[in-house]
Amino acid sequence: MVVATDGFRPLDEKSLVDYIKATPTLCAQLGNQVDGLAVKEVGDGNLNFVYIVIGAAGSLVIKQALPYIRCIGESWPMTKERAYFETLALQEHGRVCPNHVPEVYHFDRPMSLIAMRYLKPPHIILRKGLIAGIEYPLLAQHMSDYMAKTLFFTSLLYHSTSEHKRAVAEFCGNVELCRLTEQVVFSDPYKVSQYNRWTSPYLDRDAEAVRDDDCLKIEVAELKSKFCERAQALIHGDLHTGSIMVTSDSTQVIDPEFAFYGPMGFDLGAFLGNLILAFFAQDGHADKGNDRQAYKQWILRTTEETWNLFQKQFISLWDEHKDGNGEAYPVSIYNKPELQLLAQKRYMANLFHDALGFGAAKMIRRIVGVAHVEDFESIADASKRAYCERRALDFAKMLLKERRRFQTINEVISAIQEIPAF
Amino acid sequence: MVVATDGFRPLDEKSLVDYIKATPTLCAQLGNQVDGLAVKEVGDGNLNFVYIVIGAAGSLVIKQALPYIRCIGESWPMTKERAYFETLALQEHGRVCPNHVPEVYHFDRPMSLIAMRYLKPPHIILRKGLIAGIEYPLLAQHMSDYMAKTLFFTSLLYHSTSEHKRAVAEFCGNVELCRLTEQVVFSDPYKVSQYNRWTSPYLDRDAEAVRDDDCLKIEVAELKSKFCERAQALIHGDLHTGSIMVTSDSTQVIDPEFAFYGPMGFDLGAFLGNLILAFFAQDGHADKGNDRQAYKQWILRTTEETWNLFQKQFISLWDEHKDGNGEAYPVSIYNKPELQLLAQKRYMANLFHDALGFGAAKMIRRIVGVAHVEDFESIADASKRAYCERRALDFAKMLLKERRRFQTINEVISAIQEIPAF
Repeated sequence: MVVATDGFRPLDEKSLVDYIKATPTLCAQLGNQVDGLAVKEVGDGNLNFVYIVIGAAGSLVIKQALPYIRCIGESWPMTKERAYFETLALQEHGRVCPNHVPEVYHFDRPMSLIAMRYLKPPHIILRKGLIAGIEYPLLAQHMSDYMAKTLFFTSLLYHSTSEHKRAVAEFCGNVELCRLTEQVVFSDPYKVSQYNRWTSPYLDRDAEAVRDDDCLKIEVAELKSKFCERAQALIHGDLHTGSIMVTSDSTQVIDPEFAFYGPMGFDLGAFLGNLILAFFAQDGHADKGNDRQAYKQWILRTTEETWNLFQKQFISLWDEHKDGNGEAYPVSIYNKPELQLLAQKRYMANLFHDALGFGAAKMIRRIVGVAHVEDFESIADASKRAYCERRALDFAKMLLKERRRFQTINEVISAIQEIPAF
Repeated sequence: MVVATDGFRPLDEKSLVDYIKATPTLCAQLGNQVDGLAVKEVGDGNLNFVYIVIGAAGSLVIKQALPYIRCIGESWPMTKERAYFETLALQEHGRVCPNHVPEVYHFDRPMSLIAMRYLKPPHIILRKGLIAGIEYPLLAQHMSDYMAKTLFFTSLLYHSTSEHKRAVAEFCGNVELCRLTEQVVFSDPYKVSQYNRWTSPYLDRDAEAVRDDDCLKIEVAELKSKFCERAQALIHGDLHTGSIMVTSDSTQVIDPEFAFYGPMGFDLGAFLGNLILAFFAQDGHADKGNDRQAYKQWILRTTEETWNLFQKQFISLWDEHKDGNGEAYPVSIYNKPELQLLAQKRYMANLFHDALGFGAAKMIRRIVGVAHVEDFESIADASKRAYCERRALDFAKMLLKERRRFQTINEVISAIQEIPAF
């Protein structure tokens, strides 16, 4: 039982309506027609309660953070202040990339409650679309746009160090969510932990091999240090395919409650790594009617295009703003086209290797850590699921350890395509 | 003219006495005998006013930060809040390394005034001792002790990420001092700047070559990013040989007003780089009575020993505290001696290359940037001074660009010894 001590009350579908009626901005958003609102709780994420509210003259989504992790329960407490950082991130990312971030209408800090735009049907969670085998022709373009803008405009390529340090300090407050990532991504999978699980008994030896792989553990420690120490940009912090809602022509990024100033590669890796997980899951979803071969190729093309378009747009933002306030490469020093090109090449090479490393770490933790992905979980046949998971795990381990030998995303895609069937 | 608006008054030798008499902790420190105090302003640094106060029954030093940079004047404003961060750093570093950090007696934030232990004669500034050719047999041991303790105990090898993020956020407030470093170390020397100077006309071409060296500028940008983004430990931030007071058996580190959570290699590099500058300056101080050859070898031995002892002690602190709260390498994961050894080896190799890079950057900026070092400045003959400076500059440029090919400090020392006379 959660007891209110600080103005906080957990809402339900009924009390939410009273809350809305008492809140003028929300009434206005609903066209001031708040009788007979349809309210539906739809939070299928791991952490929060999410309500869709539909009235006669408007709609919205209400998200409330409770002081524990929903999917585990009150035994794993988690600050509800995460709603504050989620709001900050939605606003900051929405400012630089409004096309792919839902608008925030209202934030109530004591209640840890955010009201935002309702992403109407046919919007669905991207992960579900990938499981269903649906192609999204604009996905690579939209996601590269989102990542290029949110990462570039919150980095020292655009900000002065004064603005940067102020923002870094603020997001240091989101430490509990960072600690959750540190534990479930960078620690638990590499040791015996009560939270870990995997498709047993098939992957028992594989999980053990992860815990016994010294080389892997050394690489993971380097990535963890980067995650904990490097304030490169305001990252989403949890940019997997379950944090993205899509239609054929809309892509919306939600749920940035893990946002903080961290390494850009963490967001890039999360998205690319989860696409690659979706690729490896396809064999488990193939049936007589659809062998998923064409869809697998679409996923790989999307993976490739995402990085290539991201790189292109990130560099063009850099070129466009090179005379601005950004202090990483002042134009007074990096004053020749060939020098700027050299700087960009070095920057993108480092970012690429970070993205591959973080992406691989995110893949591994989804197979032998606490939180799995529906891509695999929805494969009912455990031995088939284990087959898909093992292929993904083996690839991710190789990628984490050998990421520095890849120079282009095409080389990564080729490596995936060359994996033989077991 | 500085006008008080916030409880701040700049003191002078006379008003300081009234301040002391009105401050019980200071009176107590002086044994409550505050008549006939001898007060002497001795601030020969670039930034602040420093008073030595000696009474019949006690002594202390008072340091007051003014809202501009002393050596430049009111035309270069600089927050006096730096005194707050200096105090925090003195206290935090003093807690983990009391033998090499003077005790803080009193801090007055509105007045930006710190009272601390008076480091009595024969304490002198290390830089002056190096110019005079004095050997300090314990210097390497003391400085490696100071750096190992202050850096280890404020890093994620010892701290939880909760403690770390809280401290990182606080020191983000010291942004103005960080910005000063960013400008004078990582930017100005690589472009035309009104503040730059060098031994002209001798080094005109050398200064120009620094501004035209693309490879150097790419490397400097990487180091600058690390300086701005990587919160690895609470670093002193200005650990040159002018921030250290010594006798034959005491080594005291002062003036950490540039302190913030940054890359450890910045402190290590500052100290090692300034020793190497002292080495290259010796030829300018040689005379018939003393060719300084033996002293040059002592400086190199001290440089070598400092790194080697630092590495040894840092690793032994790591071993000692491996079961503690540090979250970078939890013992539950890094659970075998050979794995921990591998982790330490990788960590120290990265730190070594950071130290060489930052050290080289600090050398370069002292020759072609705004703030020079007395080691060279005290060489009256400009052509002789330019000769020494050029050798140091050439070595530093090579080191910055090729630092990754050095595996041990011995290799660096050998490279210095192999530089031919021009």
